[in-house]
Amino acid sequence: MPTLVKKMSTKRGLPPGTLVHVGEKKVSKVRVSVIDYDEAQFEERKLSTVEECFPFKDKPTVTWINVTGIHDVEAIEKIGRHFELHPLLLEDVVNTEQRPKMEDFGSYIFFVLKMLYYDEKEQQVEIEQVSLVLGSNFVVSFQERERDVFEPVRERIRKGKGRVRKAGTDYLAYALLDAIVDAYFIIFEKLGEKIEDAETELATNPTPETLQTIRSMKKEMIFLRKSVWPLREVINGLERGESPLIHKATGVYLRDVYDHTIQIIETLESFRDMVSGMLDIYLSSISNKMNEVMKVLTIFAAIFIPLTFVAGIYGMNFEFMPELRWHWGYPVAISVMAAIAVVMLFYFKRKRWL
Amino acid sequence: MPTLVKKMSTKRGLPPGTLVHVGEKKVSKVRVSVIDYDEAQFEERKLSTVEECFPFKDKPTVTWINVTGIHDVEAIEKIGRHFELHPLLLEDVVNTEQRPKMEDFGSYIFFVLKMLYYDEKEQQVEIEQVSLVLGSNFVVSFQERERDVFEPVRERIRKGKGRVRKAGTDYLAYALLDAIVDAYFIIFEKLGEKIEDAETELATNPTPETLQTIRSMKKEMIFLRKSVWPLREVINGLERGESPLIHKATGVYLRDVYDHTIQIIETLESFRDMVSGMLDIYLSSISNKMNEVMKVLTIFAAIFIPLTFVAGIYGMNFEFMPELRWHWGYPVAISVMAAIAVVMLFYFKRKRWL
Amino acid sequence: MPTLVKKMSTKRGLPPGTLVHVGEKKVSKVRVSVIDYDEAQFEERKLSTVEECFPFKDKPTVTWINVTGIHDVEAIEKIGRHFELHPLLLEDVVNTEQRPKMEDFGSYIFFVLKMLYYDEKEQQVEIEQVSLVLGSNFVVSFQERERDVFEPVRERIRKGKGRVRKAGTDYLAYALLDAIVDAYFIIFEKLGEKIEDAETELATNPTPETLQTIRSMKKEMIFLRKSVWPLREVINGLERGESPLIHKATGVYLRDVYDHTIQIIETLESFRDMVSGMLDIYLSSISNKMNEVMKVLTIFAAIFIPLTFVAGIYGMNFEFMPELRWHWGYPVAISVMAAIAVVMLFYFKRKRWL
Amino acid sequence: MPTLVKKMSTKRGLPPGTLVHVGEKKVSKVRVSVIDYDEAQFEERKLSTVEECFPFKDKPTVTWINVTGIHDVEAIEKIGRHFELHPLLLEDVVNTEQRPKMEDFGSYIFFVLKMLYYDEKEQQVEIEQVSLVLGSNFVVSFQERERDVFEPVRERIRKGKGRVRKAGTDYLAYALLDAIVDAYFIIFEKLGEKIEDAETELATNPTPETLQTIRSMKKEMIFLRKSVWPLREVINGLERGESPLIHKATGVYLRDVYDHTIQIIETLESFRDMVSGMLDIYLSSISNKMNEVMKVLTIFAAIFIPLTFVAGIYGMNFEFMPELRWHWGYPVAISVMAAIAVVMLFYFKRKRWL
Amino acid sequence: MPTLVKKMSTKRGLPPGTLVHVGEKKVSKVRVSVIDYDEAQFEERKLSTVEECFPFKDKPTVTWINVTGIHDVEAIEKIGRHFELHPLLLEDVVNTEQRPKMEDFGSYIFFVLKMLYYDEKEQQVEIEQVSLVLGSNFVVSFQERERDVFEPVRERIRKGKGRVRKAGTDYLAYALLDAIVDAYFIIFEKLGEKIEDAETELATNPTPETLQTIRSMKKEMIFLRKSVWPLREVINGLERGESPLIHKATGVYLRDVYDHTIQIIETLESFRDMVSGMLDIYLSSISNKMNEVMKVLTIFAAIFIPLTFVAGIYGMNFEFMPELRWHWGYPVAISVMAAIAVVMLFYFKRKRWL
Repeated sequence: MPTLVKKMSTKRGLPPGTLVHVGEKKVSKVRVSVIDYDEAQFEERKLSTVEECFPFKDKPTVTWINVTGIHDVEAIEKIGRHFELHPLLLEDVVNTEQRPKMEDFGSYIFFVLKMLYYDEKEQQVEIEQVSLVLGSNFVVSFQERERDVFEPVRERIRKGKGRVRKAGTDYLAYALLDAIVDAYFIIFEKLGEKIEDAETELATNPTPETLQTIRSMKKEMIFLRKSVWPLREVINGLERGESPLIHKATGVYLRDVYDHTIQIIETLESFRDMVSGMLDIYLSSISNKMNEVMKVLTIFAAIFIPLTFVAGIYGMNFEFMPELRWHWGYPVAISVMAAIAVVMLFYFKRKRWL
Repeated sequence: MPTLVKKMSTKRGLPPGTLVHVGEKKVSKVRVSVIDYDEAQFEERKLSTVEECFPFKDKPTVTWINVTGIHDVEAIEKIGRHFELHPLLLEDVVNTEQRPKMEDFGSYIFFVLKMLYYDEKEQQVEIEQVSLVLGSNFVVSFQERERDVFEPVRERIRKGKGRVRKAGTDYLAYALLDAIVDAYFIIFEKLGEKIEDAETELATNPTPETLQTIRSMKKEMIFLRKSVWPLREVINGLERGESPLIHKATGVYLRDVYDHTIQIIETLESFRDMVSGMLDIYLSSISNKMNEVMKVLTIFAAIFIPLTFVAGIYGMNFEFMPELRWHWGYPVAISVMAAIAVVMLFYFKRKRWL
Repeated sequence: MPTLVKKMSTKRGLPPGTLVHVGEKKVSKVRVSVIDYDEAQFEERKLSTVEECFPFKDKPTVTWINVTGIHDVEAIEKIGRHFELHPLLLEDVVNTEQRPKMEDFGSYIFFVLKMLYYDEKEQQVEIEQVSLVLGSNFVVSFQERERDVFEPVRERIRKGKGRVRKAGTDYLAYALLDAIVDAYFIIFEKLGEKIEDAETELATNPTPETLQTIRSMKKEMIFLRKSVWPLREVINGLERGESPLIHKATGVYLRDVYDHTIQIIETLESFRDMVSGMLDIYLSSISNKMNEVMKVLTIFAAIFIPLTFVAGIYGMNFEFMPELRWHWGYPVAISVMAAIAVVMLFYFKRKRWL
Repeated sequence: MPTLVKKMSTKRGLPPGTLVHVGEKKVSKVRVSVIDYDEAQFEERKLSTVEECFPFKDKPTVTWINVTGIHDVEAIEKIGRHFELHPLLLEDVVNTEQRPKMEDFGSYIFFVLKMLYYDEKEQQVEIEQVSLVLGSNFVVSFQERERDVFEPVRERIRKGKGRVRKAGTDYLAYALLDAIVDAYFIIFEKLGEKIEDAETELATNPTPETLQTIRSMKKEMIFLRKSVWPLREVINGLERGESPLIHKATGVYLRDVYDHTIQIIETLESFRDMVSGMLDIYLSSISNKMNEVMKVLTIFAAIFIPLTFVAGIYGMNFEFMPELRWHWGYPVAISVMAAIAVVMLFYFKRKRWL
Repeated sequence: MPTLVKKMSTKRGLPPGTLVHVGEKKVSKVRVSVIDYDEAQFEERKLSTVEECFPFKDKPTVTWINVTGIHDVEAIEKIGRHFELHPLLLEDVVNTEQRPKMEDFGSYIFFVLKMLYYDEKEQQVEIEQVSLVLGSNFVVSFQERERDVFEPVRERIRKGKGRVRKAGTDYLAYALLDAIVDAYFIIFEKLGEKIEDAETELATNPTPETLQTIRSMKKEMIFLRKSVWPLREVINGLERGESPLIHKATGVYLRDVYDHTIQIIETLESFRDMVSGMLDIYLSSISNKMNEVMKVLTIFAAIFIPLTFVAGIYGMNFEFMPELRWHWGYPVAISVMAAIAVVMLFYFKRKRWL
């Protein structure tokens, strides 16, 4: 989980449009790769310099330029200048603290999205910011790390599977969006399993560690919420389709990914409901336990304290205590004690404490 | 109750419109049955192959094609191709993790709904996904299992009861919708009884099992909510009647089923209010019990501890303890003890602990 | 209080518009009474058969047909057929599980309302469903029981008090609506008194019975909410006055009854706030009590346990215990004990436990 | 604080527009005073009969008629008839259970408002209903008691301070509204002080009385909310300025009083947040205290119970107990006891209970 | 943190538009400084009298007049008169209890904003009110104290960095707004750190002081919320751009600062969620501790009370107690005691109390 607020303050006071990288540096060097295709042809290249991607700007084919690593603001600025991107847009690209959003700049549409993976080793969710610029014949994507969820999309382009090679840049953008949203389901499956484990633990043997788990799940969901909720607006904004960059035929696909987003949001809300109920269950199971402890204490104390008192009486050293001299004194005293114990046990039985 | 999130991740990376069955396989073989009717004639057939239903597409009569079993994606695809259904629609049909929704594809309207039964044996709610395609002269319904809530509708068609034989496909779709919504009432009756049982238990003898019941009812309602809430939009969308497939005369029927949906939603909300209040009651009844346990302990301890102390004093072995030699020492000591006990009892009486 | 969900399931599978009585049968026989009036004349009759009310349909005067008892679906159906009412409307009339609603059928407007009385004997709220059909020259009202809140309206019609004899059917419908809403205030006064009683009890001497009262008030308010909230929409719908059946002059009266509804809703919300706060107060007063019990126990235990220990030491039977032979041994031991007790008391005093 | 629901039921069954005083009678006799002014002239009179104010109706100057005491429905009715006010309006004037509202009757606008003072002696908030009728050349105000918050407005009119003498009736109505809203700030200051006092008490020495204070503040805020929230709509309705009675130039003043209302509402919400948090703090401070009590008890019991047991062993009267005859038996026993005590103290030290 | 409600009551009864300073006097003397620039030229002056800024009103260049200290109402009034500002606007300037807002007066736009710093020394947030008047060729800003967050903007104007020297007054207003919003991030970073510290404390060693921290953070957030939420409307109102004072090109910058505001609001909401969860965790950790204390007590009591009772029996002084004379009586009694202790320990082991 990321910390609550990253050091955005480093940016303070600079003129708007100044590019400052906010966030961790996750790769050593910016890498650019290009996939260029139309129905007939396909080309894939890993570029050695940023400038090599410039000629693709004016090619009529669909070009997908993928930039990995956003800490090198100069490289980002070069790309921005060539593709005539607004400085505020570039500022958002290099600032990993953005919330998901969509902005229509007229000749291109800009998205910020959060890509989520579940890190199996660390058993936690990793968040990475992905920015997409959708132009009429190019899509530029910026991501923080090598690893991504776009590999299946690349594969489909390479093999010409599905509609992707026949459609335009809007379909490509949709495909990337869809890949990101699809990846959320894995996160939610994992989270769902964790919740069910915690539930089982809660029902059988709740410990203070269970409480820690609940707390950390709650916190995790607060962060997921921040990534997932704004997505709804983003895709809804696209789907309303006021931009000429989005073709009508893509609408039904956007509606599909919108449905997925709603499904994710509803799942998140269900999870929240469940987890927030778990704390109450935990508290009441502690109360139950304490109640049981109290009963044991009370039963022991209430049975033995009177008995001890009786023993105490006959332990007194008065000279004139006639009982002490009776021959049956001792057995009678023992019997009285036994009777008291039985009465007490019967009383607790009736009170259902036993 | 279903698990929280099904394995949707198996679908990840495939091009949109690829049919992958998500969910349990609940029947061994896909079965198709056809009911074809108009005011004058009626025909009902169980088909041995999927292809046999194809000719009905162009018949002017109302045709209801019911497909049971959705795990065989090829069969679904065949039907889809013949009836010119959108691939994304078919993808939704075979994915049982859909939320209830309505989509207007122009020449047909597509619904996803959740059919609920109460399994008397298992004492739990079973959810099944039903998809409906409403065309101008056919309705195709897809369901997961043989058992359904549509039998009364079939019976009405067979016997020509009510308006159904005189009306078009939109009325048939309404009738199916209505049958599904009507079935919800049974679920809610059962749930209502369960809640009342739990309430009675809570008022008379709350145990940790009561807590488990409350918890499981809460969880059940989280799931019901996911099935029921979106229904409102679905039916509202239909009722606004912008599609030429929905005749005006059907509007009043849709309004009726809409009212039922609102009633179900309000009942669910009342149930939620009641159940969430029950946990508080449970907690306070535990507190009450602990309070009572504490009082018993305190009364015993506070009465006998001083008495035991007095007995302890006269159990001391000092050589010069004049009281030990008094003739009335023992009776006086016993009387002092009795006096202490009476005072304590009086004190607790005044404090209303007895 | 009614049960949560009535047996609506008996209706399942029947074609829409089939009349099935849902609810208790509260009178033995359906009775119909008619009040027919205009500014000049007035006639009031109790009819022996349902059919006798049919001629009033075409009289130009204002006719109010009151039907008591809705379990006889045939009688309801006869009236419905004669007055050309929609079968779905009649279905709603005989189903007492309806939520309050308004439906405009063009030539008449249909309302479902909940009439509430406070039953002084049983000390609880009784709910009865009232349905109204407002036509251009008639109002048909259906109610479950003889007893109603309309008597003052009848009296005003009989005596020609107020505007009622000069105005049309819409004013009559308003007057009935107003009578129903006015009756709510009595319910709320009673409930308000109950809440104040519970508050006083809570502040002075909270018992588990107080908790039961709070719980039952909470439940009662969940039901009241279901009756009262939809009323807002109903009257608002009327007031917007899109139906030609509602004259403009009646608008100001509808706004008045709308204001009353809002006032009732706000009062209900205030009540909810107060009652939900009461549970917290109850819980904290239990905690307070337990705290006090604990203190008493602790003070007794902490004072006497050390004293008993000292007594125990000098009750040991060692042969060589020099103190036992000292002449002042006993008084010194007693003094030491007294000193310990004083120190403990002083300690608890400083801790403010005494 | 007023009771929850006043006896509105007395009104039940009367025709609408029947004037019935609902509320307490707070002055013995209805008094009417008139202030009549324009830029040039000023006249202020206390009238002996209601009728004396009638001639002012047609004077072109601005006339402010202030009526104190609303229990005399005949007097109110006379004024209403002369100024052609709607009977439903008059009904609202004499019913002190109205919620704040605004109604535009075309030739005049009607407001109901709640005037709040803080009664220093009783240390509580007093609510009084003020009704205003704004006509083209008159303002009629109805209030329950002599004491009011309008004196500064009168003073400004008398001395011609500010814009009031130059402007029309709408500005006068604004000035009265503003005076009422301004008075709310005093109430909120007092309440704010009370909250801060309670907070300090809570942090230093919470007692059950603190709980009572929190409870009563909560209740007070429920009532304030009912008076303050609807004000927002009232002033917003005015500001939208669809009535020709409100001049454009008055708009900026209404916006100003609207801002104040929003500020009050937000302050109230902040107060609610703070007070509702206080109960949680109270509960956890009780828990903390109980924890401390428990620790003291446990430490005493756990140290002395084993020691008493050891003493008990050597108090047994077996004939063959070799230790009893040892010369160092007693000192060794005492040392063992001391060692046990030290070990226990060390154990509790490590557990941080000491 | 400021107190809840400042003494606004001092203003009561004055005619609207009367300037009364509400708030603390934070500087001794009002100081005015002027920055005047266009693309070509730049001038910065500290003025000795208020009047010196008057000539700038009609200069075509962009003029930024910064007024520090708002307690001197006469100086504020002079400026207001010269720049033809509405009296109600000036009233708002000198009243530091305003909520953030925007008002369009046609020839100028007026903003009220809250400037926040984090005072490192006092470790708390300081709030100061900043008012901005945006005219066609001037911006007047009013602030309470010398210290501000505008220095970087001044620096950019001086050095001609960024767009500021090329753009008009609307861009200057945006730059000031942006500086204020940027400063919020620092506050939120600090708050985020505080929350994380409190979380760690809660997980390792919660004390009543942790509770105080949580409480004070909650209160702080209630205040932050009041400053931050209305900002959204303010900037949204500007961005919709209906005023001719805002050029189209500035729109994209306003959208950027709007995004920042949303981000701040969402962060605040996440913080609220986290902090409100912390109280529950605190309460359950207290319960856990108490549970542990109870167990220790119960284990000690339940083991030693029976043992002491056995010792008590053989401390009785009956003459005929055969066991006392047995040679192995003592060792057998000790063994019985040891057996009891072992059984008890085993029992508690099985109950997982050890």
